Amino acid sequence: MKTQRLPKRPPPRSRLEVDERRAQLLAIARKFFSENAYDEVSIDAIAAAAGISKGLLYHYFPTKRDFYVAALREIAQQLLTETTPPSSDVPVDERVRRGVETYLSFVERRGTAYVALMRGGIGSDPEIAGVLEETRAGFLARMLEHLPAGVDGALARTALRGWIGFVEATSLDWVERRAVPLSSLVELLRTMLFEAMKEVARLTIAAKAGAPAQ
Amino acid sequence: MKTQRLPKRPPPRSRLEVDERRAQLLAIARKFFSENAYDEVSIDAIAAAAGISKGLLYHYFPTKRDFYVAALREIAQQLLTETTPPSSDVPVDERVRRGVETYLSFVERRGTAYVALMRGGIGSDPEIAGVLEETRAGFLARMLEHLPAGVDGALARTALRGWIGFVEATSLDWVERRAVPLSSLVELLRTMLFEAMKEVARLTIAAKAGAPAQ
Repeated sequence: MKTQRLPKRPPPRSRLEVDERRAQLLAIARKFFSENAYDEVSIDAIAAAAGISKGLLYHYFPTKRDFYVAALREIAQQLLTETTPPSSDVPVDERVRRGVETYLSFVERRGTAYVALMRGGIGSDPEIAGVLEETRAGFLARMLEHLPAGVDGALARTALRGWIGFVEATSLDWVERRAVPLSSLVELLRTMLFEAMKEVARLTIAAKAGAPAQ
Repeated sequence: MKTQRLPKRPPPRSRLEVDERRAQLLAIARKFFSENAYDEVSIDAIAAAAGISKGLLYHYFPTKRDFYVAALREIAQQLLTETTPPSSDVPVDERVRRGVETYLSFVERRGTAYVALMRGGIGSDPEIAGVLEETRAGFLARMLEHLPAGVDGALARTALRGWIGFVEATSLDWVERRAVPLSSLVELLRTMLFEAMKEVARLTIAAKAGAPAQ
């Protein structure tokens, strides 16, 4: 009878190892999908960068699209986390300045990832559109917490949504052209937020007074 | 010898007929792609609505995507045409009001077409992204013509780009929620444009004076 070699048993995989592997893969995905268009990223290249088989990669993320959505979700989460406002003891003016500065600092450091998040990449995919909308809703909810008393909530929400559109459009423009100093952009964004809120207050008062809104 | 019937000769197709047919097809495409997602639109249904064969339809637009891009381009062109500003004798305040009003009137009447233009629909398609960017560039060029003398051009361009983002975000929000009166939105958009330009003027002066921009 020939000696039979037992197959090498794989090391036991703990929950921690699974989480770590997932985090490692997401970090690699963030990098790949930040620096390349969706169609240019190959799953083989990601597996090679992670030092694992394609099969194991697919165990964590069944399709390339799943992987992409997870990477964009990570980028979005990071943007929200980094811009978490300081405690509410800080005066509103300072809170806004810091919020805008940390947002633009993310845009400066992670420009390609930011563009990927904003532009989607595989288009009308509802899940990707959802990630972006959730991010906007996150910013909106934070800002709505600090609304001055008495202003028209629906109008304030619309104005804040508009301001987020202003921030996104100027941020994308800045990534692509870097035509103005970042410090000027910080000032512009701050001012626009305060002016938007002033206009909402003015329109609220005009509506209550029954006056035509102008 | 049997009498042979001559095949009916098709009526000669003039250049005008070709243009008219193209315009008819584009009108149908605008309607179909405005009211349905890209994947829901069938070429058969469009051919049936136009009363022509699928073959003839493909003669005008070789692929469904070509047809879609042409339809979005039409919508974009219509938006730009309808908002053509009045002659420059009209005071700037009135020009801005009319521009904002006609833009929002388009959004009100053609909400689904507007959303289709803004959201693309087949995603990262560079040609569709190009149509939207050209539309924005069209608005930007118009506004840059009327820039107050002496302001920092790059900063003004950034601020105007941001304002267009503000307009688009609030317009999309309005189509989806109709949460505020359209007249309030007109006022908000007007005010934001003037405040953006005021801030650009302030930052221009601050930069010239060598003062820190705040």
